[in-house]
Amino acid sequence: MTDTGNDTGPVVGMVGGGQLARMTHQAAIALGLSVRVLAERAGDGAALVAHDVELGSPDDLAALTRFAKGCDVVTFDHEHVPTSVLQALEGDGVVTRPSSRALVFAQDKLAQRRRLSELGIPVPAYAEVREPADVTAFASEHGWPVVLKAVRGGYDGRGVWFTGAPPETLPAVEVYVEQKVPLVHELAVQVARRPSGEMRAWPVVETVQNQGICVEVIAPAPRLSPGLAADAERIALRLAEELDVVGVMAVELFEAPGGLLVNELAMRPHNSGHWSIEGARTSQFEQHLRAVLDWPLGDTTPVLPVVVMANVLGGDATDLSRTLPVALAAEPTVSVHLYGKQPRPGRKLGHVTAMGTDVVATRARARRAAALLRGDEEDGS
Amino acid sequence: MTDTGNDTGPVVGMVGGGQLARMTHQAAIALGLSVRVLAERAGDGAALVAHDVELGSPDDLAALTRFAKGCDVVTFDHEHVPTSVLQALEGDGVVTRPSSRALVFAQDKLAQRRRLSELGIPVPAYAEVREPADVTAFASEHGWPVVLKAVRGGYDGRGVWFTGAPPETLPAVEVYVEQKVPLVHELAVQVARRPSGEMRAWPVVETVQNQGICVEVIAPAPRLSPGLAADAERIALRLAEELDVVGVMAVELFEAPGGLLVNELAMRPHNSGHWSIEGARTSQFEQHLRAVLDWPLGDTTPVLPVVVMANVLGGDATDLSRTLPVALAAEPTVSVHLYGKQPRPGRKLGHVTAMGTDVVATRARARRAAALLRGDEEDGS
Repeated sequence: MTDTGNDTGPVVGMVGGGQLARMTHQAAIALGLSVRVLAERAGDGAALVAHDVELGSPDDLAALTRFAKGCDVVTFDHEHVPTSVLQALEGDGVVTRPSSRALVFAQDKLAQRRRLSELGIPVPAYAEVREPADVTAFASEHGWPVVLKAVRGGYDGRGVWFTGAPPETLPAVEVYVEQKVPLVHELAVQVARRPSGEMRAWPVVETVQNQGICVEVIAPAPRLSPGLAADAERIALRLAEELDVVGVMAVELFEAPGGLLVNELAMRPHNSGHWSIEGARTSQFEQHLRAVLDWPLGDTTPVLPVVVMANVLGGDATDLSRTLPVALAAEPTVSVHLYGKQPRPGRKLGHVTAMGTDVVATRARARRAAALLRGDEEDGS
Repeated sequence: MTDTGNDTGPVVGMVGGGQLARMTHQAAIALGLSVRVLAERAGDGAALVAHDVELGSPDDLAALTRFAKGCDVVTFDHEHVPTSVLQALEGDGVVTRPSSRALVFAQDKLAQRRRLSELGIPVPAYAEVREPADVTAFASEHGWPVVLKAVRGGYDGRGVWFTGAPPETLPAVEVYVEQKVPLVHELAVQVARRPSGEMRAWPVVETVQNQGICVEVIAPAPRLSPGLAADAERIALRLAEELDVVGVMAVELFEAPGGLLVNELAMRPHNSGHWSIEGARTSQFEQHLRAVLDWPLGDTTPVLPVVVMANVLGGDATDLSRTLPVALAAEPTVSVHLYGKQPRPGRKLGHVTAMGTDVVATRARARRAAALLRGDEEDGS
C-alpha cells in the first residue's frame, strides 16, 4: 500500500495513527496530498481512513527507517519516538519536523522546565526528585500539597499525583515535584512555525478540565484580559523561535493569581486546537502540514466571535450507532468529529464544535451535542 | 484493501473516484466513516486518499456487484452507471441512493424535460429530434438560433451545439433541440432529502460561466430578488419530493426575462455546492452522506454573509508545486482544495473558497487565488 500513484505533491509521513493523524490526513486531502501513516494497529483511527498505511511501532528504528523512505518529511502525532531513534533517523538523512532537538522539550518535562527557566519564561516552582526526601524538602520550601509529575509520557491526568504529606515511596516512573498552582483558569495557545521562520498564532483559548481531562475549549478565552492574552501569545511565539520548533506547537498555561505559568508543550496538533477546523480560517491540521512542508502559513482569525469545542468521552453505555442520529437531530448546527474508535468509558471518541456570537448559548449547544453522543440523558452534561 | 477493520459505522460505497468522491471521503472521516470507492483508475482523485478502494468500470455489473457486497448503501459521484445495470443491482437487493428511478432524470435530459413539463415546472421550449428537419421545424416556431443538446453525458459545455441555420447533419450522439434562452443569470439550488422525507435547501447561488464551464459560484446569489429565490427553492424541494430523490440534488436554473427555467439536474454533490465546505454549517458532502444513511440532516445556513468559490482550471503551464506556495502566500485567508490531478489545459484541478462580508472584495480574493494557482500573471484572472 505504499505506492499511491500520487505524484502531484510531496509525501508527508506521520508517525502514529491516532485521531491527530486522522484529522491531518483529512486536511491533507484539500492540499492535494495524502498523508502516509505509520500506525501501530490496522484499526487505529488514521489507519482506517488513509490510503497509504504502514504498520509498525514508533520505537522500532528499522520500521521507522522503512517508513521514512520515500517521505519528503516525517512528522508525529505523539511524543513516543525515543530521542535516540529520532537522532538515528536524522543521522540517516531523514527530515524530521520538528527535529529531535526541539521535540525533546515536549517529551521530557524536566528538560522543558529547565530550558524554560533558563529562558526566563515563568513556570511553576519545581525540583528534581531522586528519593522521597526530595519531595519533603521541596514542600518545606513551597508548602503542601505538591504535585508529582512523570518526566515522560503523562497525559490526560495520567502521570500526575497530588500529595499533601511526605510520601513513603515514589511512583514507579521517573518523576519530578512541582508546586500546586492555585488556578484561575487553564489556557492554551497554538502557534505554527515554518523552517523559514514565519510564525502564526491562533487566539488564546480557555481549556476546561474535568479530573485532569480536557472536556471543553472556548475560543477565544472569554474571561482573559487583553494584557494576559498578549503575554500568552508572546510566550508561545518566543518559545517556538527559541526551541526551533517546526510545525504546530500547543503551549498550555495556568492563569494563576500572580500571572501566567507555562504547564505543558506539545509539538503537534493538539486537542486545544480542534476548534480551528471549522472555527478558524486555517485549521491547526492544515497549518501543521504547511509548516512542515515550509509552505506559507494561513490566516488564523476565527470565523465567528465564539467557537466552542467539547470532547466526546465514552460513557458506560455509549453506542454511537444509536446516539449519533439523536445528536445530529438535536443540534443540526453543530459539527461532529468521530475518530473511528470503539467506545470505552473515559476514552476520547470524538469532539463537537459549535460556533456563534454568544458564549453561554454556544457552550450549551456544544455540551448538549457531546452529552447526547456520549449517551447521557437529555441535559445530562 | 476491502477489510477496513472499521466496525464503528455503516459502509457507504461510492461509484466513481473523482473529486466528488474524494471530498465525500473527507467529509466521511468526520462522521466516523470511511467511504468505499469504486474507481476506474488507481490514480483517480479519491483512490489516492481513501483507504478502501476497488478498481472497476461503472458499467460492469460484475464489478459493481462485487463492490456492493458489504456496503450498507451505494451512491454515485457521476451519472455513468447505465440504468439497466442499476436495475440489476437493485434487483439483487443492493440499496442504491438515489435509486435508478430517480437517477434516470439526471442521466437522460429528454426524460427530465418531459417529466418536468408534466409537473408544470418551467423548462425551456424543447422538442425531440430524429432528423435535421425536426430542428428546422422547431426553429420555425421558436426562432433561430437554437441549441442542440446531447440527451446523455453532456457536461462542462460538452454535448451542446448552437446553430443559427438549418443543419445538414446531426451530431453523432442522440440529441434534442431547445430554444436559446436569453439569460439574465445562471443560478443553482442544492437540496438534500433523506428516505424519511426530511429535506433541507441551501441558499440559491449564482453560477458564473465561461465558455460553458462554471468558473465561479457566489453564495447567496447576490442579485436575485427574494421572490425568485423563494421560487427556486420551492422548485428544487418539490422536484426532490416528486422524483423521490435521496441524497443531494443540484438544480441548475436560468434566470430569464420571463422568470426561472430549470436547466439541469444532478443527483449528487455538485460543483455549485463546493462553497458549502467552509461556507455553510453543513457541507453538501456531509449532507449527502447523512441523507443516503437516512440520518438527520444538518443546518444549511451560511457561516458568513458572502461565500465565493472559484474553480481552478488548468492553464497552459500550470505547475501546482510552483504555484501553490505563491497562492497560499498571496491569499492567506482563502481555503484551497486540490483534487490530486495532473494539470492539463482546461481540466478542473481544484477550487478555492473565500468568505467575507462584501461581494466585490470576496470575489476578488477568490479569483486572485484561483488565477495564481493556475499560474496566470498577477491580476491575470
